[in-house]
Amino acid sequence: MGKGMFSVSEKQQVCQLFFVQVLLIVLMGALMTYGPEADANLPKNHTGDHGQKHVKKPDPLRVYPNIHVMIWIGFGFLMTFLRRYGQSAIGLTFLLGAILVQVAMICEGVAHIQKSSTSYLSLKSLLSADVAVATPLISMGALLGKTTYMQLVFMGILELIAFTVNKYVGEHLLMAVDAGDSMFVHAFGAYFGLAVSFVFGMKDKPKEHHLEGPSYNSDIFAMIGTVFLWLFWPSFNSAALEGDDQQRAIINTLLSISSGCVIAFATSALVSKDSKFNMVHVQNSTLAGGVAIGTAAGMMCKPVGALVVGALAGLLSVLGYKYLTPLIQKRLRIHDTCGVHNLHGMPGVLGGIFGALMAGLANEASYDYSLYEIFPARAPSSEAKLAEMRDNYGISAGLNRTAGEQAGYQLLVLAITVGIAIVSGLITGLMMRMSICGSISEEQKFDDEAHWELEEESSQESKVKEGTNCGGDQLPMAHI
Amino acid sequence: MGKGMFSVSEKQQVCQLFFVQVLLIVLMGALMTYGPEADANLPKNHTGDHGQKHVKKPDPLRVYPNIHVMIWIGFGFLMTFLRRYGQSAIGLTFLLGAILVQVAMICEGVAHIQKSSTSYLSLKSLLSADVAVATPLISMGALLGKTTYMQLVFMGILELIAFTVNKYVGEHLLMAVDAGDSMFVHAFGAYFGLAVSFVFGMKDKPKEHHLEGPSYNSDIFAMIGTVFLWLFWPSFNSAALEGDDQQRAIINTLLSISSGCVIAFATSALVSKDSKFNMVHVQNSTLAGGVAIGTAAGMMCKPVGALVVGALAGLLSVLGYKYLTPLIQKRLRIHDTCGVHNLHGMPGVLGGIFGALMAGLANEASYDYSLYEIFPARAPSSEAKLAEMRDNYGISAGLNRTAGEQAGYQLLVLAITVGIAIVSGLITGLMMRMSICGSISEEQKFDDEAHWELEEESSQESKVKEGTNCGGDQLPMAHI
Amino acid sequence: MGKGMFSVSEKQQVCQLFFVQVLLIVLMGALMTYGPEADANLPKNHTGDHGQKHVKKPDPLRVYPNIHVMIWIGFGFLMTFLRRYGQSAIGLTFLLGAILVQVAMICEGVAHIQKSSTSYLSLKSLLSADVAVATPLISMGALLGKTTYMQLVFMGILELIAFTVNKYVGEHLLMAVDAGDSMFVHAFGAYFGLAVSFVFGMKDKPKEHHLEGPSYNSDIFAMIGTVFLWLFWPSFNSAALEGDDQQRAIINTLLSISSGCVIAFATSALVSKDSKFNMVHVQNSTLAGGVAIGTAAGMMCKPVGALVVGALAGLLSVLGYKYLTPLIQKRLRIHDTCGVHNLHGMPGVLGGIFGALMAGLANEASYDYSLYEIFPARAPSSEAKLAEMRDNYGISAGLNRTAGEQAGYQLLVLAITVGIAIVSGLITGLMMRMSICGSISEEQKFDDEAHWELEEESSQESKVKEGTNCGGDQLPMAHI
Repeated sequence: MGKGMFSVSEKQQVCQLFFVQVLLIVLMGALMTYGPEADANLPKNHTGDHGQKHVKKPDPLRVYPNIHVMIWIGFGFLMTFLRRYGQSAIGLTFLLGAILVQVAMICEGVAHIQKSSTSYLSLKSLLSADVAVATPLISMGALLGKTTYMQLVFMGILELIAFTVNKYVGEHLLMAVDAGDSMFVHAFGAYFGLAVSFVFGMKDKPKEHHLEGPSYNSDIFAMIGTVFLWLFWPSFNSAALEGDDQQRAIINTLLSISSGCVIAFATSALVSKDSKFNMVHVQNSTLAGGVAIGTAAGMMCKPVGALVVGALAGLLSVLGYKYLTPLIQKRLRIHDTCGVHNLHGMPGVLGGIFGALMAGLANEASYDYSLYEIFPARAPSSEAKLAEMRDNYGISAGLNRTAGEQAGYQLLVLAITVGIAIVSGLITGLMMRMSICGSISEEQKFDDEAHWELEEESSQESKVKEGTNCGGDQLPMAHI
Repeated sequence: MGKGMFSVSEKQQVCQLFFVQVLLIVLMGALMTYGPEADANLPKNHTGDHGQKHVKKPDPLRVYPNIHVMIWIGFGFLMTFLRRYGQSAIGLTFLLGAILVQVAMICEGVAHIQKSSTSYLSLKSLLSADVAVATPLISMGALLGKTTYMQLVFMGILELIAFTVNKYVGEHLLMAVDAGDSMFVHAFGAYFGLAVSFVFGMKDKPKEHHLEGPSYNSDIFAMIGTVFLWLFWPSFNSAALEGDDQQRAIINTLLSISSGCVIAFATSALVSKDSKFNMVHVQNSTLAGGVAIGTAAGMMCKPVGALVVGALAGLLSVLGYKYLTPLIQKRLRIHDTCGVHNLHGMPGVLGGIFGALMAGLANEASYDYSLYEIFPARAPSSEAKLAEMRDNYGISAGLNRTAGEQAGYQLLVLAITVGIAIVSGLITGLMMRMSICGSISEEQKFDDEAHWELEEESSQESKVKEGTNCGGDQLPMAHI
Repeated sequence: MGKGMFSVSEKQQVCQLFFVQVLLIVLMGALMTYGPEADANLPKNHTGDHGQKHVKKPDPLRVYPNIHVMIWIGFGFLMTFLRRYGQSAIGLTFLLGAILVQVAMICEGVAHIQKSSTSYLSLKSLLSADVAVATPLISMGALLGKTTYMQLVFMGILELIAFTVNKYVGEHLLMAVDAGDSMFVHAFGAYFGLAVSFVFGMKDKPKEHHLEGPSYNSDIFAMIGTVFLWLFWPSFNSAALEGDDQQRAIINTLLSISSGCVIAFATSALVSKDSKFNMVHVQNSTLAGGVAIGTAAGMMCKPVGALVVGALAGLLSVLGYKYLTPLIQKRLRIHDTCGVHNLHGMPGVLGGIFGALMAGLANEASYDYSLYEIFPARAPSSEAKLAEMRDNYGISAGLNRTAGEQAGYQLLVLAITVGIAIVSGLITGLMMRMSICGSISEEQKFDDEAHWELEEESSQESKVKEGTNCGGDQLPMAHI
């Protein structure tokens, strides 16, 4: 992989794909084993596992299938909006997801190895892997139609490594809270993808492309993705939580994403000529409320707080599509096919800030001892204060942070996240441009022909020849 | 909103949409708070909440996501069957759902305020809100393609108020049982929508419209909605139940909707020339069995009872599409775009009657003490009889109703429901016609152009110009 | 049904369809009742039902909806890939599923009647019925586009009877383990369908057909099916398991189907000219890993074992599509529309063999006493050894099998399954050819016209007449 400075053939990409899967098998074989809950050999471990007092048993099977649908159906179909790139959108999401879910398990396993010397696979790690996979899929949105599949695979692997490092720093070392991953997934994925796109734009200035638009049916296919994402967003934001925190996250997310949806529709009509809705906004900005409530999903931000932050996100997102995206493309040469900056970038940052605000307002009066479950760093560090809480509520020693300190750390982690995303994205982009994994020419962009044997061609042609005089050099209609 | 007797501009509609969301934020802020199960501040309440004996804890998270899918994917895609109205079908369901789920929470909150002086949000109220939202979406089916989006929003808000009043009367005051909401949701939604459509028909006689039909692909999109509704109907009908009642409701609903599906197919072929299936019937009447078993879903109606009522509903529904809908349109000038009378109206009434029949047959021999859980009004009112049941099974004092009385109340509530639906629908229709919320002209009907910036147009046109001589004034093919 | 040796009219098929549903109502009425968990009349049974020690209560509601989605959305949309057969694919799956789920309940009921003299309906039997329905839907894949609907119904009923017998022999009498039904569902369904197709091919040599291919949109519709099947496969393979076995089955299946997906993509590009992906492979072979891990899903096959068997299945499946299917069609005259041999047949056999291998390697060192839960026939038969295990872990007496014996029985059951599938498939095929249920002519093949009133025709024609000169005798474009 070292010095391949020349374009690789398609055959080489195929070999790389085989190689990646073989490598994953080797790594998984070397590193991973069944966790205690999935190990037939540990019956005692299994039944005695949850003996601790006040630990509510979460059942990942309740939300896991929903997250699974979001990743493959949600992201996959959301990106089918281009008129000639639908098969690639759903197909490459499928391929990328299947590879990266394995990569994410290994990354998470390695991050946990430091503690227990073995890496466990469990429903919880499957769930975390799904959430992690969302990050490179967001970045893929910025690059949709402009890369080979191996470029995406390569990007995804590097991005998951950077993601794991950043999440480890933010969550474990700096003890920031980000239940719905507004920062770790959404902001990270968006700015990483934009950084890669920036590197691509340095070489080829983004131009208008005749295939970069929807068809009537592709816009409806995309709505399959949008609506499933919208529906299961409460599961996404509450996946890592339990008990009343989980219920609150579900309620907050539903409220935020609902008001965000309404305001996105309204703003879309407001900024368009003739006050009509725009499908791009409806497919994307309607989801911004789910991103923006992410960090604070489990906090006591009140129903009205959730509604307000969702509404702001919907507004911001549509305005971003309308005014900011063209500007960024023109000035910074950053082309953003799906507009991930508007759906994940800005709403993710908004979510991080809103989370910091809520963290700054959190006190024992409104949270009782749950405060120290939700913000573990705020728990007392001294043995004296801790004793009763630990015995009765299972709360561990913390860092004795004040509300203001916690808010500061939240903002710090947001800044670090965006920073790591941009830097690692730039580096990844430069490596992707070195053509290790091939590249897509201007004519191949946004075209399924680049990746797919389109079987229908021949039968179409024969039909056109048979009975009509309007074929010409025109694209067969059914392709549109 | 008082005297706007003239057509409003599109811009005004946008402002109304913003206004509605702002109003919802204000009301939610004033009225709603987290329920005890979602409140971090009430750890004792939380763990001690379920101390009562014999109260089986339901877990709404098991069925809630399924209901969620039914409302937005199910209803949304079911209505995409029109060839040029697919984006509006899925898009307006999306918008309407996002607004009305908030309205429904507030309505339910207000209805409950009378008891506890605060209104709680919980998973249970989210679930109830989803179910409530189905009602105006059913009415929307009767009006599909003939209204502005603000007319639908306006209708939905008024309808949810009427729905809440009716459900309160039927369920709390008259103590009728309607587990799967055959009456409260299906019959109510259908007759409300038909009443509105009647008012519309008074002004404009329904005519044939060249866009009121499917395309090959739109019929397949619609099947996404049909099949998801069909699949999750057992969750819908069992959502409000627990334990063995829930299991029975799932079994009954699966049986009823399966036999209804088969009979709908068979009847569709029976009434068509050439004995072929008709997509309209398959998309809609296959679901009638789910509606018809609704009221009795949790009752001991035996597997064979569920199969029979489902089969009847499938038969009735297809015959309705074939013979009754054209008649109603011609004679009563009620145009019913999706045929909600056949899917929700008649099967809903059938469900109400079947429920009354089953209630009339219910006795302690076949239900044991569960009789008083399922029909709370039948529980003894006198302390003497009640004591043992209350202590051992948690049964509360009832009204001492006989089986026949309960059956009578069931029929009374069915009649009241249809009555309130028609009256409130007529009033709402008259208010909608006052053009507060704009209106759709004959040419704009069933056309996405009325609501959407269709971005593809320009690129299509350029392509047509490039290479073909068959463009003419014909609609671009890909739109069909 | 006795002597109808001549082609039946369409009307007769309709009557047969009504007859089948009426028969099902009668049988269900005579045989089935609510199981104890769904019976209001058995409160004591209900609460005391799970009193046994060490019996983990499974909650079928957690996975049941996912399986439900797989059967109707998964299979239904997977088969929409043909350009003019999408409505039949989704519609006939719908009809067939609704009939056969009732048939499957009755078959299972009859199989259980031998033990308890009544047949119970419960969530568990609903779940089993869904799994059983997958079998004839797999066979339908081999015949897609070449049969009347009544031929499929007829086939499905006979197949479910054979399926029930085979499963009873394999699971109860020979005590083979097949958690994910690689053998009982996948291999059985595939070889049964191929046998039927063989009989059809004896009469009409399979020819090329101009409608036997995809369109751009039909390929995307099919991906809805593929991705939902892929997503919920872990639920399918773990549906019959509990506790750690279930968790392990979920993990193993996710790993196997992920690596299978990646290798299917890679192999697809490897065997194609230009190294491009092929939609047929991506729609089908990406799922082969889920089939191949089925039998061993709950076993301790290690993460690396699951990855390897999945990768092999993906490879095998694509090679099958590329090289074996054309050969089988040419030499054996077996036409296989969806290529079920490559998705279900070979991967199912691979799964059976892998399961036997894992069974042969299973010992108490790696499974502890779970060994006797997973392989009940390996439990000691003698009272002495059994006592402690039974008291502490609820393990019943077994057949004292060694690992090698269990492996041998696994292979025996695989052979019997394929044998029964082929023999019963041949017989069923011969009966289907007797035209009791009509037949499809060469011109009607792969064409929705055979089953559906296509309403759009007339409106299309009028439009074509209005404005264009390129209609001619060409198929309307929108149909493609």
